[in-house]
Amino acid sequence: MSPHTPPLSRRLDGLQSSAIRDLLKLTARPDIISLAGGLPDEQLMPRDAIARAAEAALTDPARLQYTESAGWGPLREVLAARESARLGRPVPLSEIFVTHGSQQALSLLGEVLLDPGALVVVEDPAYVGALQVFRAAGARIEAIALDAEGMRVDALAELLARGERPALVHTVSNFHNPRGVTMSAARRAELAALAERYGFWIVEDDPYGELWFDRPAPEAVASYSPNVIRLSSASKILAPTLRVGWMVAPDVVCRGVELLKQGADLCGSALTQQIAADLLADEGWLGAHLDKVRGIYGERATALVGAVRERLGERVVSTDAAGGMFVWVDFTDGTDTVELLPRAVEHGVAYVPGSAFAVSRSLRGSMRLCFTTSDADTLTEAVDRLVAATA
Amino acid sequence: MSPHTPPLSRRLDGLQSSAIRDLLKLTARPDIISLAGGLPDEQLMPRDAIARAAEAALTDPARLQYTESAGWGPLREVLAARESARLGRPVPLSEIFVTHGSQQALSLLGEVLLDPGALVVVEDPAYVGALQVFRAAGARIEAIALDAEGMRVDALAELLARGERPALVHTVSNFHNPRGVTMSAARRAELAALAERYGFWIVEDDPYGELWFDRPAPEAVASYSPNVIRLSSASKILAPTLRVGWMVAPDVVCRGVELLKQGADLCGSALTQQIAADLLADEGWLGAHLDKVRGIYGERATALVGAVRERLGERVVSTDAAGGMFVWVDFTDGTDTVELLPRAVEHGVAYVPGSAFAVSRSLRGSMRLCFTTSDADTLTEAVDRLVAATA
Repeated sequence: MSPHTPPLSRRLDGLQSSAIRDLLKLTARPDIISLAGGLPDEQLMPRDAIARAAEAALTDPARLQYTESAGWGPLREVLAARESARLGRPVPLSEIFVTHGSQQALSLLGEVLLDPGALVVVEDPAYVGALQVFRAAGARIEAIALDAEGMRVDALAELLARGERPALVHTVSNFHNPRGVTMSAARRAELAALAERYGFWIVEDDPYGELWFDRPAPEAVASYSPNVIRLSSASKILAPTLRVGWMVAPDVVCRGVELLKQGADLCGSALTQQIAADLLADEGWLGAHLDKVRGIYGERATALVGAVRERLGERVVSTDAAGGMFVWVDFTDGTDTVELLPRAVEHGVAYVPGSAFAVSRSLRGSMRLCFTTSDADTLTEAVDRLVAATA
Repeated sequence: MSPHTPPLSRRLDGLQSSAIRDLLKLTARPDIISLAGGLPDEQLMPRDAIARAAEAALTDPARLQYTESAGWGPLREVLAARESARLGRPVPLSEIFVTHGSQQALSLLGEVLLDPGALVVVEDPAYVGALQVFRAAGARIEAIALDAEGMRVDALAELLARGERPALVHTVSNFHNPRGVTMSAARRAELAALAERYGFWIVEDDPYGELWFDRPAPEAVASYSPNVIRLSSASKILAPTLRVGWMVAPDVVCRGVELLKQGADLCGSALTQQIAADLLADEGWLGAHLDKVRGIYGERATALVGAVRERLGERVVSTDAAGGMFVWVDFTDGTDTVELLPRAVEHGVAYVPGSAFAVSRSLRGSMRLCFTTSDADTLTEAVDRLVAATA
């Protein structure tokens, strides 16, 4: 910065680039098997169907124009129908709002729901994109641990009993990123009851719910209470390039988000929103597509978890990977995954240390492994390299 | 809102929907000729070229994936080449940042450049999307009038001499929305000199610069000083559906924007960014396309200004419409355009009253007319209806 450059805002002080993104840049070398990514497999994305939908959309000049801030009407209708089926109640159009990926929903909700200093409860480890939003909103963060049944709602109840009053509780309810677990039905009901008793919002962040392997995810947290704002996305089931996420939220929240969306970027793309609408509306095609993705991701997850358990044995505890994109591994032998990482990269394998997602604990004995973009043999080879690095 | 609904943030207090957007909803009736819009003509958008580029982009699975927060690399290269030619200096890639339309650039810059309470100078009348951003950032707003040569830089100099120290001065340098005027070369040089002397940022917001009719717009304000952040967009020259805007800014600003973009929406669409890159890189095709749009918009502007001057005569002063999308009309006979609007709608014509863009003055004697989406005969008919409404 030259001596005469005007200053930047204090908001940037201490704000750092995402550790994961910086790491991804380092592990793009072709000789490294990266389990560090968090990307869906682009080879499984429905390129032909998207190309056909794009061609159809571009026969209409109106798809080239600006569209409504809340999203292109027919896409919102498709989403309302799908979410009505999922939530077991008729979801009106006014409660559906389309965003530029569900990250934008988080960002706009941070502004609509949080005053500076508001308390936000997140899970520990947390989705870092949500943490970034809540910190930018000036929120005070409290973290609740996860176990095999998801968020420790009993710990949340204790926090509330101590007199803490969150404005918002954030949960990745299904196939947690990075923790791999799914919140049990009993905990969903308890969490919803706490929200109504204490008057807080739940943000149910659910990009992975459709990516189940053996059985569907439990009923949405949003089916238990009107205090739940539910987020989902086409990025993991169709393609991130569409930049289509959506929220299901009370009308008053959607109208607040609409005002802020106008200032944030006016509106989304009518072209990519029509592509998403066409593909999501075609239930037969979508079902077959999802079955294929579930089958392949399921095989990869099984291969990865199998190799981890076979080769690392009692040195680790691994999640089962019942869906989603990630396996979470806790070392029980004192291995420090931050210290291990450079050795692992030397051995040709990369992962994200648990500490990158940690909120109030160190999680230096844990790692997140992504199984979406490697086949079973490659995943097994990756675990062999990891074992060699820990030797 | 049910009695048990948790509260929203105080940010929403007093925040209102854009007056223009609400008005547009009222004037969508087919019997009304609306000069109230602010949309480019979708019939002139290059639908076939976009369809060909989409088909080509979708042969590559990588275009379905997430892309870089700063924008897809090859698009940034095309933009760097174009902006280097425009600014007369080599613009490095690190100084090019792609946003979701230039509205997102404004929004992210509001966060990167402004602390709460910072002084922002805008033009009066102002682009309302910029005002919304600066108000949301908690800025204190001062407004400087425009005349036929654009911003009254002498008035800005007086404000600075009084001791005011803006963090940022916003200008729509070419074919101003809503005021229709272009800043003269002399004022550009003076404004840039003030920015360096007093150490403030200039945001040169230039979505219309390529839409000149008889002669190109003057050299960019950004060619006079490194304190200028230059914004432009593909929305008005290609199609809004691409959601491609960009900024040219010092590296330190781009890196700040990058951090905030990750939290705002992670990244743009690799699909629409490749479409934009292909079309902007094809100089022969783009030149012919822009010549066509300039010719047609120019004819429409001439028809509208001619009809206004012929039929309203000395009752008004109208801008010349040398480019862009808007004509600004000041009534000299005491007509109140807010009071006139319902009568105008009864007579089948709509416009936006000047007061919708006013910052510190009322501008109730002014109106903005958009000429992009009606042919010459329709524009003449619209003015006839306007005359009838004022009778």
